[in-house]
Amino acid sequence: MTGNEQRLRSWRPGQVRDAITAFLDSARDVAPRDRVACFDNDGTLWCERPNYPQLDFFVDALRARVSEDPSLASTTEFAALLAGDRAAMGELGLTRIAMALVGLFAGTTPEAFAIEVRDFFARATHPTLGRPVRATTYQPMLELVDALRELDFTVCLATGGGTEFVRAISQDLYGVPPEAVVGTMVTYTYSADPDRVDGVPRPVLRRATGVSGDVNEGPAKVSNIQAQLGRRPILAAGNSAGDREMLEWAAGGDAPGLAVLVDHDDAAREFSYLSEAGSFTDTEPITTIGARQGWTVVSMAKDWATVFGDATRIDP
Amino acid sequence: MTGNEQRLRSWRPGQVRDAITAFLDSARDVAPRDRVACFDNDGTLWCERPNYPQLDFFVDALRARVSEDPSLASTTEFAALLAGDRAAMGELGLTRIAMALVGLFAGTTPEAFAIEVRDFFARATHPTLGRPVRATTYQPMLELVDALRELDFTVCLATGGGTEFVRAISQDLYGVPPEAVVGTMVTYTYSADPDRVDGVPRPVLRRATGVSGDVNEGPAKVSNIQAQLGRRPILAAGNSAGDREMLEWAAGGDAPGLAVLVDHDDAAREFSYLSEAGSFTDTEPITTIGARQGWTVVSMAKDWATVFGDATRIDP
Repeated sequence: MTGNEQRLRSWRPGQVRDAITAFLDSARDVAPRDRVACFDNDGTLWCERPNYPQLDFFVDALRARVSEDPSLASTTEFAALLAGDRAAMGELGLTRIAMALVGLFAGTTPEAFAIEVRDFFARATHPTLGRPVRATTYQPMLELVDALRELDFTVCLATGGGTEFVRAISQDLYGVPPEAVVGTMVTYTYSADPDRVDGVPRPVLRRATGVSGDVNEGPAKVSNIQAQLGRRPILAAGNSAGDREMLEWAAGGDAPGLAVLVDHDDAAREFSYLSEAGSFTDTEPITTIGARQGWTVVSMAKDWATVFGDATRIDP
Repeated sequence: MTGNEQRLRSWRPGQVRDAITAFLDSARDVAPRDRVACFDNDGTLWCERPNYPQLDFFVDALRARVSEDPSLASTTEFAALLAGDRAAMGELGLTRIAMALVGLFAGTTPEAFAIEVRDFFARATHPTLGRPVRATTYQPMLELVDALRELDFTVCLATGGGTEFVRAISQDLYGVPPEAVVGTMVTYTYSADPDRVDGVPRPVLRRATGVSGDVNEGPAKVSNIQAQLGRRPILAAGNSAGDREMLEWAAGGDAPGLAVLVDHDDAAREFSYLSEAGSFTDTEPITTIGARQGWTVVSMAKDWATVFGDATRIDP
């Protein structure tokens, strides 16, 4: 085995592993400042079924708040969520439900929010996989992240989820620092001196109820990566229509780029679902688009010898 | 001399150097993830008089474009700029002039913009100091940046200037990567496939004419640092009213924080000017506010043995 094959030990031999190791070899000829890789998170680095972990976190927090203030449970969005009423939730739409949940944390400081997220990950169990949520990251992808970092890549996350949610655990799970997490960003309210001591202000930021700019999906993922990171990735990995533009951007630069698409075709070990067609401007599944464009389409069932790794410890 | 005094060799002995070395010593007890420092750029890390270097860059680019298209010179904002008519410029206001200049680069890709900035720094000379613009960085502040980095601080820039402008030279001048530069951010337009090859899109970002969110001054500096970096600094350095909130935020956290304010009182070696009062909500000079709050107010004349260092090489 070569060094790269050793590093990617959870990947089965085949075209996909060959494409990745060829990319890693070629990256040695790329200027270090251009060695940037962007990974989607939900469904690319960790399991997103049956629910996004962020939704489970929000519902968990909602239950805790309802136990203190039962009137919350009658809010339209929250009632649908708490009943697990998928029909009602579908009718309301994910955006409206998400914004109601964001509102639940209005007034919270970034530090307090991070502690609450970490507390959830320290104890939450996946509903069907029989493992902690923090242990539903994909071992082969973690190995790819490590192999890139060994080549001095700046490894970034580009998630449709909440930036601050993912930042709370990105260092522990992926070794990615907060500034390298690009996501959907909540707005903050700045207060100069709610807690003035001896004439010296003690400024504080508190979460507001809106998001800043666009939800981090589709073309916005590209613009947001440029705005926050200032560099174009030469490797991007995703699993859904919302990752299309980022993958095309990474693959379509001057340097040799790699677009990695994870296909969830493994009902036995994880889940089997086709990326939904018709999102954004696409009328065909993202796997079809990716195959046509020469992306590296990963079959979870065929290409991964192992799906999940050991649980990472997260202290609240 | 202690190690810190050796590292800060361009700082004269005294209260200011003592405050900085005491902070560096105490930072060893701070958790590594909280070791974050944010530096303003104009007037804090490099000379901002008689003009912001960014303004000189824009005017230089304007002259080049006017030589290709003389009609540009009759635009109200550009005519005032090219004539150096400070009265007319004052009447138009910096914001309107800045936006006209941003418009000059509409359609430019991030890569082409960075090349143009680097080309300017490779050749531009300061109008009065008799040195390259890239050599008007402050040697004592570079030593502070190095000392912080030696302690594994994440060193960031929080500039009122253009994010992409500063990013083009931040790695060379300060060792700060693009993702650690928080500034005033231009908006981009994403185009899917202007240059499609064999059915495969080649997406491109081009500068638009607006800025995203607020100009990065005052309270916006605090919110923007949180949004982009996800961490609160424990050291902040600035020199103007636009840095006040950032300095109060760094000094007012739970960890021992340091607010460093550069006072330009050195007409012999650089410039002498009081930070303007009345900006934002302040009715007194920032040096007065800083002294009252116990900030470390640096007298350029008294505290710095050397002002400027050697020129950094910048290849276009």
